[in-house]
Amino acid sequence: MRLSSLSISLKGEFPMEKRDKRTNELWISEHQSDNMILSLRASAVLLNEKSAYQDILLAETEEYGRMMLLDGAIQITERDEFCYSEMMAHVALCSHPDPKRVLIVGGGDGAVLREVLRHGNVEKATLIDIDRSVIEASRKFLPTISVSLDDPRADVQCLDAMEYVRNCRGEFDVAIVDSTDPVDFAAGLFTSPFYRDIFEALGDRGMMIAQTESPFTDTAVMQGAFSAMKEVFPLVRLYWGAMPTYPSGMWTYTAGSKSPDPSLPVREAPAGTRYYSSEVHKGAFALPPFLTELLSRPRGL
Amino acid sequence: MRLSSLSISLKGEFPMEKRDKRTNELWISEHQSDNMILSLRASAVLLNEKSAYQDILLAETEEYGRMMLLDGAIQITERDEFCYSEMMAHVALCSHPDPKRVLIVGGGDGAVLREVLRHGNVEKATLIDIDRSVIEASRKFLPTISVSLDDPRADVQCLDAMEYVRNCRGEFDVAIVDSTDPVDFAAGLFTSPFYRDIFEALGDRGMMIAQTESPFTDTAVMQGAFSAMKEVFPLVRLYWGAMPTYPSGMWTYTAGSKSPDPSLPVREAPAGTRYYSSEVHKGAFALPPFLTELLSRPRGL
Repeated sequence: MRLSSLSISLKGEFPMEKRDKRTNELWISEHQSDNMILSLRASAVLLNEKSAYQDILLAETEEYGRMMLLDGAIQITERDEFCYSEMMAHVALCSHPDPKRVLIVGGGDGAVLREVLRHGNVEKATLIDIDRSVIEASRKFLPTISVSLDDPRADVQCLDAMEYVRNCRGEFDVAIVDSTDPVDFAAGLFTSPFYRDIFEALGDRGMMIAQTESPFTDTAVMQGAFSAMKEVFPLVRLYWGAMPTYPSGMWTYTAGSKSPDPSLPVREAPAGTRYYSSEVHKGAFALPPFLTELLSRPRGL
Repeated sequence: MRLSSLSISLKGEFPMEKRDKRTNELWISEHQSDNMILSLRASAVLLNEKSAYQDILLAETEEYGRMMLLDGAIQITERDEFCYSEMMAHVALCSHPDPKRVLIVGGGDGAVLREVLRHGNVEKATLIDIDRSVIEASRKFLPTISVSLDDPRADVQCLDAMEYVRNCRGEFDVAIVDSTDPVDFAAGLFTSPFYRDIFEALGDRGMMIAQTESPFTDTAVMQGAFSAMKEVFPLVRLYWGAMPTYPSGMWTYTAGSKSPDPSLPVREAPAGTRYYSSEVHKGAFALPPFLTELLSRPRGL
């Protein structure tokens, strides 16, 4: 029988985890919104450091395996990351006619990169993450996730992606924006000036994908990113998937395209996917009416 | 910025909610598994009683509106119940060729009944819930959910559904099993003897739907219910959807059919749906490969 209980939240100054002195239980909690907390039992904290950009916490959880939080927000867990990484990578890579050169903005953990490199036609994947410490933490503690960071086709650079993209002209077929939530240095990654720079960085048939948060807990962010992308790309489509450790478990992604239709896969899924298939790809673009309705409203942000 | 915190869980003797004496904040928490807790901030507890069958808690939450818990497990919230109720009702009612007589097992809150009665071709919907207190609590505190309990086409009876179904022969076109988790008196609702009784209670082209829990947190239950239904029905198909306040946010449903294909809608969605559409119906049967793989393994229970 499931038991209810009281969660007392000790609002988090760094460090972000604490141990219950009465029971000796260790729980890692995320404030998924002001009014909602997800708590996961952990057996150990593996890393707890302040990088130049953010707080990094790595823990071994019982439910989802190893987990990385940035500034207190769950970024990735070993058990469910495939749901997110595969939907970030394969929708564009299976619907673009010939994706050879791929840009990943953020994603220093390496999960989206790993999925991108499953595609034999990709010649080069450039990953630009501002925070070297995230990459190092993933290399050290998340081997199944960081596995492709040293692939010969991977070009990993620690730079400000907004600045980097501003100087690109037509050199990528696909761009994937694997950002943190739109706060601090990541806020600009959800705006039309950035999407315009991405547009310029893409070739003629170029396509971009951005993670655009939960329709339940981040409605205005989703609406804002969708409208901002529509100011720039002729074809913009939202799609969604399950993502257990993200707020509400229902996650959205937005595709902006210069010409190919992101909702139509033109090639088979690469071998070894666990969430993505061509049928799942098409199904993800079937939006529940409440989502369509949210997108038709004036920009939320 | 999202802040992490420590959740101290006071394992729940009844009553199930408590107030933090330091901050005067009220949080309602569900142990979604042994290793995972979802906590929702509440402004008030509306009802906290022990019925003949279970503990009933009703609270006003900030994130999801009014919420009902049974034995500490979240059953329904005003804000996200449409995701679940619509997928429970409309998949069968839009794929059965002529659904006139519908049986709902459990579902005393009235949400699935409300969705069933959106269909003009339904002549009678029989709802059998063992616990009159759940029905009364919904009538009193959840007006948008219980709205159809007094519909002239609704026949609401407080009985043991397992016993009731055992005495039915071919009188229903569609049966929907809206059960609590498979513990205590609800455990039998996930087994093949019960599915066999449902089979007998259905007409020639009959179809049943059962909620079959999360593939992440209740893997064995899902596998067990799926295998049990396959022992009885010639055509069994699993489908899935988002359900934010249920564990992992990814929920599965299993359809057993005597002949019509549950994955193929043959009629339009009724007016006013917010999650369900014909396209969402079809998309829900596109299973991520990890789900297909789980279903191909030997029965988990």
